[in-house]
Amino acid sequence: MKSFIDCIPCFVRQSLDACRMITSDEEIIRALMPKLLAELSSTDLTMPPPAVVSRVHRIIRKELNNSDPYRKLKKQSTRKALELSKSAEDMIAKSNSPFDCAVRFAIAGNILDFGAKTDWNEDRVMNSFKSAMKKPLTDNQVTGLYSKIEMAKTVLVLGDNAGEALFDRLLIEKFPGDAKVYYAVKGSPVINDVTEEDALDVNLDKVACIISNGADIPGTMLSECSDEFKQLFKEADVVVSKGQGNFETLNENGREIFFILQIKCASLAHRNGYTEGDWVVTSTTSLKELNE
Amino acid sequence: MKSFIDCIPCFVRQSLDACRMITSDEEIIRALMPKLLAELSSTDLTMPPPAVVSRVHRIIRKELNNSDPYRKLKKQSTRKALELSKSAEDMIAKSNSPFDCAVRFAIAGNILDFGAKTDWNEDRVMNSFKSAMKKPLTDNQVTGLYSKIEMAKTVLVLGDNAGEALFDRLLIEKFPGDAKVYYAVKGSPVINDVTEEDALDVNLDKVACIISNGADIPGTMLSECSDEFKQLFKEADVVVSKGQGNFETLNENGREIFFILQIKCASLAHRNGYTEGDWVVTSTTSLKELNE
Repeated sequence: MKSFIDCIPCFVRQSLDACRMITSDEEIIRALMPKLLAELSSTDLTMPPPAVVSRVHRIIRKELNNSDPYRKLKKQSTRKALELSKSAEDMIAKSNSPFDCAVRFAIAGNILDFGAKTDWNEDRVMNSFKSAMKKPLTDNQVTGLYSKIEMAKTVLVLGDNAGEALFDRLLIEKFPGDAKVYYAVKGSPVINDVTEEDALDVNLDKVACIISNGADIPGTMLSECSDEFKQLFKEADVVVSKGQGNFETLNENGREIFFILQIKCASLAHRNGYTEGDWVVTSTTSLKELNE
Repeated sequence: MKSFIDCIPCFVRQSLDACRMITSDEEIIRALMPKLLAELSSTDLTMPPPAVVSRVHRIIRKELNNSDPYRKLKKQSTRKALELSKSAEDMIAKSNSPFDCAVRFAIAGNILDFGAKTDWNEDRVMNSFKSAMKKPLTDNQVTGLYSKIEMAKTVLVLGDNAGEALFDRLLIEKFPGDAKVYYAVKGSPVINDVTEEDALDVNLDKVACIISNGADIPGTMLSECSDEFKQLFKEADVVVSKGQGNFETLNENGREIFFILQIKCASLAHRNGYTEGDWVVTSTTSLKELNE
């Protein structure tokens, strides 16, 4: 999807947030802002939001000399995920439908996102997990996803954020059948998106083959991904996409993709018939049918 | 005061709002955004917010070929003000301290501002007026202001927004003494700031001499005002400044100025020891003492 015009103030806000991850010196940030605004002004604003915003994040990392501004926040997310994992695992184990239950925790975990909202809000995190079992799922394609995975030889999961990745592991553990599972991470740090290091922190290598997508975009822009990743993306029997950034970059893709996410933006919600805060399990096929 | 870095996303948001006053065609707005972002990127971000944002408003008015995008909203504000004026006048007339009461309605009227928040929210407007008599005034300099006006030969009131101007008239009607009163309006339309036409709509000419400040900035940047206005500003015995835009451009001015406003921005509140939503009656003298 292309960026909405309402994304533009949000890009600037997110730039500020990223700068503040590195420095509290407002004068340093102020001095960098003209460069960031100029970059945005020369960027094709019809690109998906993750593609646009990745360009300012690149400048911030370079100019403020920090290759991974969200590292501390990512580690905090991982610690929190580990803290919450025991009760999630228990509930999944005791559930009559463990796959459905694991999908729900994978969505709950999607709250560990610092692109949409930067501050660590303990209540917001806890409320997301408390909702896990009772929140209605919008366009609930869980059964369809289950059947497809059951028959698949290869499943590609597109990771979203650090910490959240732990709940992706719990979900992969409940995949039916015996497909080989790949877990795609970002090629290098961008916002708090999951990288190989973050995936290893939550033992994703125990259940999946971790693969880099080769890009530093908080979504999956195939044009910027490695050939190896693109090949896998093309050939995998099932693709499961986590989070809003991946949705924004892949919702119009021609192949079947299942999307699992929380809707964190009023504009995106409005344009797609969702409500901000919705928990969604949909697919490109389902999106197409809804739009016809 | 100089712009905060947090003003920058807000400038972009306000640009979008202004564009939407003129067109609902998102592609037209999207096409204009690079120009607005480039203008911001080349603007001195140490200038006060009204000075920065006036530059994008100029481009919007020119490029979208509309000299007064907020005209409809200003007329709506004026109608609402007229509707609310009867009960305000009654309460002021019955009050034991009519000047204090009129100050309160002048602050209540400051809710009719479409720079900080663009949508017309009837509840927000009504709540502001319902609060008029009970809301505590921060740094309450009402008595000092009264004494100064009582002794003055000339009083200059710096208007803020259309509609709100009606309540400035009610306040001027309760000025003690017999000073000649000037009411400053913007030289040409910017956001919903009060112009001569808007002031005449609420009969300000019956109680004051309406004078243009000669500028199209949603505040009072003396460097861009007419010589005639600057002379008056310098020589007036008392200057009363309405609203946040005038505060942002004059709070560090060397002369004594009384400020009457609602605080509508968390950053401005935070840096000045206020809380967002505070109703403030302060002065440059008082601000200096508080900062020492």
